[in-house]
Amino acid sequence: MPNLTSTFFRVERDGPVAILSMNRPDKANGMTPDFWTDLPRLMTELDRDETVRVAILRGEGKHFSGGMDLAAFAEIAALLQKEPGRAAYALRDMILRLQGAFTAIERARFPVIAEIHGACIGGGIDMITACDLRIASEEAYFSIEEIHIGMAADVGTLQRLPKLISPSIAAELAYTGRRFLADEAKAIGLLSSVLPDREALQSASREIARDIAEKSPLAIAGIKRNLAYARDHSVADGLDYIATWNAGMLRPADLMSAVQAKMAKTKATFADLLKA
Amino acid sequence: MPNLTSTFFRVERDGPVAILSMNRPDKANGMTPDFWTDLPRLMTELDRDETVRVAILRGEGKHFSGGMDLAAFAEIAALLQKEPGRAAYALRDMILRLQGAFTAIERARFPVIAEIHGACIGGGIDMITACDLRIASEEAYFSIEEIHIGMAADVGTLQRLPKLISPSIAAELAYTGRRFLADEAKAIGLLSSVLPDREALQSASREIARDIAEKSPLAIAGIKRNLAYARDHSVADGLDYIATWNAGMLRPADLMSAVQAKMAKTKATFADLLKA
Amino acid sequence: MPNLTSTFFRVERDGPVAILSMNRPDKANGMTPDFWTDLPRLMTELDRDETVRVAILRGEGKHFSGGMDLAAFAEIAALLQKEPGRAAYALRDMILRLQGAFTAIERARFPVIAEIHGACIGGGIDMITACDLRIASEEAYFSIEEIHIGMAADVGTLQRLPKLISPSIAAELAYTGRRFLADEAKAIGLLSSVLPDREALQSASREIARDIAEKSPLAIAGIKRNLAYARDHSVADGLDYIATWNAGMLRPADLMSAVQAKMAKTKATFADLLKA
Amino acid sequence: MPNLTSTFFRVERDGPVAILSMNRPDKANGMTPDFWTDLPRLMTELDRDETVRVAILRGEGKHFSGGMDLAAFAEIAALLQKEPGRAAYALRDMILRLQGAFTAIERARFPVIAEIHGACIGGGIDMITACDLRIASEEAYFSIEEIHIGMAADVGTLQRLPKLISPSIAAELAYTGRRFLADEAKAIGLLSSVLPDREALQSASREIARDIAEKSPLAIAGIKRNLAYARDHSVADGLDYIATWNAGMLRPADLMSAVQAKMAKTKATFADLLKA
Amino acid sequence: MPNLTSTFFRVERDGPVAILSMNRPDKANGMTPDFWTDLPRLMTELDRDETVRVAILRGEGKHFSGGMDLAAFAEIAALLQKEPGRAAYALRDMILRLQGAFTAIERARFPVIAEIHGACIGGGIDMITACDLRIASEEAYFSIEEIHIGMAADVGTLQRLPKLISPSIAAELAYTGRRFLADEAKAIGLLSSVLPDREALQSASREIARDIAEKSPLAIAGIKRNLAYARDHSVADGLDYIATWNAGMLRPADLMSAVQAKMAKTKATFADLLKA
Amino acid sequence: MPNLTSTFFRVERDGPVAILSMNRPDKANGMTPDFWTDLPRLMTELDRDETVRVAILRGEGKHFSGGMDLAAFAEIAALLQKEPGRAAYALRDMILRLQGAFTAIERARFPVIAEIHGACIGGGIDMITACDLRIASEEAYFSIEEIHIGMAADVGTLQRLPKLISPSIAAELAYTGRRFLADEAKAIGLLSSVLPDREALQSASREIARDIAEKSPLAIAGIKRNLAYARDHSVADGLDYIATWNAGMLRPADLMSAVQAKMAKTKATFADLLKA
Repeated sequence: MPNLTSTFFRVERDGPVAILSMNRPDKANGMTPDFWTDLPRLMTELDRDETVRVAILRGEGKHFSGGMDLAAFAEIAALLQKEPGRAAYALRDMILRLQGAFTAIERARFPVIAEIHGACIGGGIDMITACDLRIASEEAYFSIEEIHIGMAADVGTLQRLPKLISPSIAAELAYTGRRFLADEAKAIGLLSSVLPDREALQSASREIARDIAEKSPLAIAGIKRNLAYARDHSVADGLDYIATWNAGMLRPADLMSAVQAKMAKTKATFADLLKA
Repeated sequence: MPNLTSTFFRVERDGPVAILSMNRPDKANGMTPDFWTDLPRLMTELDRDETVRVAILRGEGKHFSGGMDLAAFAEIAALLQKEPGRAAYALRDMILRLQGAFTAIERARFPVIAEIHGACIGGGIDMITACDLRIASEEAYFSIEEIHIGMAADVGTLQRLPKLISPSIAAELAYTGRRFLADEAKAIGLLSSVLPDREALQSASREIARDIAEKSPLAIAGIKRNLAYARDHSVADGLDYIATWNAGMLRPADLMSAVQAKMAKTKATFADLLKA
Repeated sequence: MPNLTSTFFRVERDGPVAILSMNRPDKANGMTPDFWTDLPRLMTELDRDETVRVAILRGEGKHFSGGMDLAAFAEIAALLQKEPGRAAYALRDMILRLQGAFTAIERARFPVIAEIHGACIGGGIDMITACDLRIASEEAYFSIEEIHIGMAADVGTLQRLPKLISPSIAAELAYTGRRFLADEAKAIGLLSSVLPDREALQSASREIARDIAEKSPLAIAGIKRNLAYARDHSVADGLDYIATWNAGMLRPADLMSAVQAKMAKTKATFADLLKA
Repeated sequence: MPNLTSTFFRVERDGPVAILSMNRPDKANGMTPDFWTDLPRLMTELDRDETVRVAILRGEGKHFSGGMDLAAFAEIAALLQKEPGRAAYALRDMILRLQGAFTAIERARFPVIAEIHGACIGGGIDMITACDLRIASEEAYFSIEEIHIGMAADVGTLQRLPKLISPSIAAELAYTGRRFLADEAKAIGLLSSVLPDREALQSASREIARDIAEKSPLAIAGIKRNLAYARDHSVADGLDYIATWNAGMLRPADLMSAVQAKMAKTKATFADLLKA
Repeated sequence: MPNLTSTFFRVERDGPVAILSMNRPDKANGMTPDFWTDLPRLMTELDRDETVRVAILRGEGKHFSGGMDLAAFAEIAALLQKEPGRAAYALRDMILRLQGAFTAIERARFPVIAEIHGACIGGGIDMITACDLRIASEEAYFSIEEIHIGMAADVGTLQRLPKLISPSIAAELAYTGRRFLADEAKAIGLLSSVLPDREALQSASREIARDIAEKSPLAIAGIKRNLAYARDHSVADGLDYIATWNAGMLRPADLMSAVQAKMAKTKATFADLLKA
Repeated sequence: MPNLTSTFFRVERDGPVAILSMNRPDKANGMTPDFWTDLPRLMTELDRDETVRVAILRGEGKHFSGGMDLAAFAEIAALLQKEPGRAAYALRDMILRLQGAFTAIERARFPVIAEIHGACIGGGIDMITACDLRIASEEAYFSIEEIHIGMAADVGTLQRLPKLISPSIAAELAYTGRRFLADEAKAIGLLSSVLPDREALQSASREIARDIAEKSPLAIAGIKRNLAYARDHSVADGLDYIATWNAGMLRPADLMSAVQAKMAKTKATFADLLKA
């Protein structure tokens, strides 16, 4: 039985779809210490539950997320009162831990859809770049806010954004920290679609989620892992990797269901993955 | 004398331009065992013929290609009746061999232009991502079909598409398998141009081909190899590689032809490459 | 005292902004031997001057730059009269040296804005791809000219352009050498903005420069280095690198200025970097 | 308070030295499910305890470790009764999890000394290659046992051994699975020293441990991380990484203690690291 | 039916062992054009024959191999009479083709044992570094001969030798071209064993070959591929690769044979691999 | 005319051999600020002088080098009084600059022989690992001294030593900082030879130098560059690189000299490289 309790997130299930709602609406879902601890834990728990096939990440209240809660910086400031070399070592560990929270999204075997409305700034951008799909409502706005508070973003934006969209555009957004809107985010490839309002946004994210959930979870996991692998390796390495992957994973069960369903003009159903 | 006979392809020459037409129109140019054997063989033969400077890859009938012929999967199913570990090993070998057919396009010294009309789905996408330039007619449509039959595409799409266009968009197309049309394919950068109809498409591909054929084949081969190298290496490595490349390949012959022609307002002509 | 004299460039300062103007207007700022020597020297000198926080690279006269001065090729031709193996070795050294001139832009700790008008062809493209931001006036035009003189561009375009924009589009531009205009350059992500005329262009580049100069120079240097690192490494490596980077560089001084200024609704001011 | 209870390991402390003894002597410390769960948990707990500066890994009874308990294979066999594609996916997850147990040794900030006597075969070799230092008693013997039971070792030996000693020798040991003794293991560089008997071995491992524990834990952690980084990257990358590392970590505190102690001919003492 | 005829090699079978003897004893097995064509062809043919489990590479006459036949250089000299840029391109192709002959040894699924006597110089060293195991008779001698004829070895020695033995020693041997004997070759890790005379050498290579041939061919192929992969990737990548590999390849059939045989104190027998 | 004046080094020429002697014997050639500035400058000057074919690096007085002069640390301590984030940035720059001094050895086109006697500790080890060949007199001793003063060595030892000798042994030497003697250094592959006394050492280094100087400088430069490239890349990449290299550099001139000289039983002479 997965433990899905959290003070920061509300976790719901809609059949094979898990919905994680950031639930600190009065603070624009600013990322507190609980956020950083609960997100990776929840991703791991959901990953172990073979009935979960896709997840939606969203925010309660007026905004998706305003990013890092400023209180976090107080913790850093306190740390930096100590012996400087050791403080630096501890700070590196802390940053690695925060990064790990978003990498947990990337490591999950199922796709995670970011459903974005209102503000998505600072840590919010770091978070959505670790997701697999991103859609937003028209009024959503974005900003690599970190430069405005005198820091280089260090939990993923500088690494993942230029591997999702044109690095030329990513650089401009990082240096200037300028606000950009959903339509521009769609035009540069960051969003798959822009919906007129929040209701339409929620319907759309559910629909995409259900569509993916109906597909073979083995094939979906294969696509996710192989896209991540391909991003970080040469084409030759990527080809070898998927050949080795499919040597074990490509088995007739799913193919047959799919082909027979196609012929019968019905929908194929695919079994869940196995718990190891 | 290159052996250009094939049951799957029809190969023609228009001066320095080689035209490979998939020739199984009644089956939407579905990729049979012959396809996978003949494509790499033909690419190798053409590569050895120093008078070939560019190739066009196209399809007879209503469609560019409907992808893998389903018969191929029967072969896999038969294999998987055998001892499972050895079957996995043999399946990996088979996938590597199929991948090699498209990598042969990438390894050829001359650019290959994909001329796309009608359906370009499944293996068709794997194929065009291994080409150097892609143009299509307006009615062309595309789909990473594999997810609909319960498999992760394993002959190149997941590796090459995100290194041609925004990986964010590539992921969406891979997870959903949704159909997209020529105009969208152009907007996301997959196509260089969209032509109103098939006739215009053929004219356009011939024109691009002839334009490239008139350029220095040594420079063109250098661009092709160095773009592939740069894709898979750091910028520093890429710079070192092209410096080492041009140390041997940048010689005055072509430069002089070009400059003299420019002054004389004529067209420079460039000699073919040498057979090793 | 930095030595900023140069026969090719005119160097001015506008507070923290350094402005490098190519100053050979009668020859469309064609790149002479002086260009290749002075550019890296000036970048190094400016980098050592901790009061410089951003640079603008622009051209006097009607054009940004027409690329390599043809006289350079005479030097190569002379070299190639000598013993061929040793000539190849020397030519490789020469190319590496020319490449180094543009890599000096990338190595500088501050962002460099390319302000482009008129022609930006051949070496001009190599140069702007090594810059951090690119804006142009509407009449600007671009071409990977090298293929027209029978050579594979070897000072950066083939390596950097496909890591700034869609590699699919970059390939088409490299093979055909076709001219493209500012609007297209913006649409494919190469430019951040297009201004109606040269006056507006200069205002815009100064404005962006001043905006960046007001930000924390430590954070800006961190963004620049980490974007370059991320481009050439896996996401996992990039995350580790910035965690290690910020372990030493993320200190409360700048954060506090920024947060206090925000509260006081004033502008934060950030101290210059230190000379090592 | 770290939780150091375990059914497989006995954990003791000798000041800053943690001693992990595999404690299943009647079964030659064969690796049971508890082993794989407890090892990474213990490494994480010890890593969080800033008073731990070095660890020793050893075995109770006549042998260091006979490797994987055969019962583990029954679990795999059961898994493989299920739908083959999903079983393959689950098996991959299981192998990754087992690998993670040894990688936890590599990830710990402190060095881990393998103290080897008797048999060190199969999984035993995988384990010691993930340690930082290896010493053994004369009668110790080693074998890459996996090939004798028809499998390619998959928890680290094939990856780490050829990056510790000559890959030529590593290959021979992997293909033949031949037994080799402590003296040969020393000659090929796998062991730092060979002691005449088990008593001497224990004294030696304690002495090395205490020697390391007296050094700056910040410097030791830096060496460990930078050696691992260097192994997996180019020299240029490794140099950049340690420069970035020491930018934050190299602070006068430890240097001064060391230099003053040297002058006073006393021993320097270095403070523990900080808990993040 | 594999085609094993060759003018350069004599191919014999001893059960699962294939023996390739270079058969140009009067010329110290100098590598003629036939050599470079036949070696990769034979490796491919043997690789397709699932009954081959290991190969021995040896030479008839007094020497293993004196390396490249000087006639090959005449071909290069002729080529270099042509237009220099195109000649350079063709020469690169030629070198890549020669390299491919040795890489075919590395690509074969079965281990190849180099059985060395007499001279092993120049191309002979390139060849044995591509083999999986190397043994020699006491009188064998070695030299990276290429430097004595004014060239940098370009068919594998500079790439593979420093990844088999200490790169420090490899460099010294490459710069000086000094002759070294079997005993030194063993001491530096290049050879697995040195036998007193040629007869003992042949017995030893057969014995090693039969020993490997009795092991699971699936496990042996897995070791070979994963050692090559590990050499060229980080430890993390290598671990992921073998987990993915064994997800499909680790199946109970071979494990059970092995364990049952162990219990019954008999020898396990393992089935051949499958033809794809 | 190269400028070879230096307060730290004495530079002499013995025909094609350049001899750099560290010349601060009363301080065991401790590395002062002059050292770090002069070494890279001298290497660049010598590299430009095409008559230099090999260099020897040695020390006057009783020791090769005692490593970093402690005064250097005072500079760091002063720096660290400043704003911590900016101090970290400046310190990183300083370390990169010091590293660059040794990398200049690696970048020179000619081999550099380290001639070691007496103490070679701390920075001395960093220096010799950047050289191409290392020989020592019997009484020489070595230590990765940095750990004794509480720091992780940051100018090359941790990066280069494990890529010269067994990483297992390198780790032990780095963690313990233990002193080891010339004989052990030879046994682990760090030294090519050990000479009985300093006189014999000098004779030996001159002899090796002259031997290398008589070889083709083009081939020697090719070996040096390709060994460095191979170290940092996969075998496949290394093979492609040397094929591309020799496409331009392998020309008949040197081969012919060599072959004709061989036939005439005389010594071939090879022309110097060309100045670019």
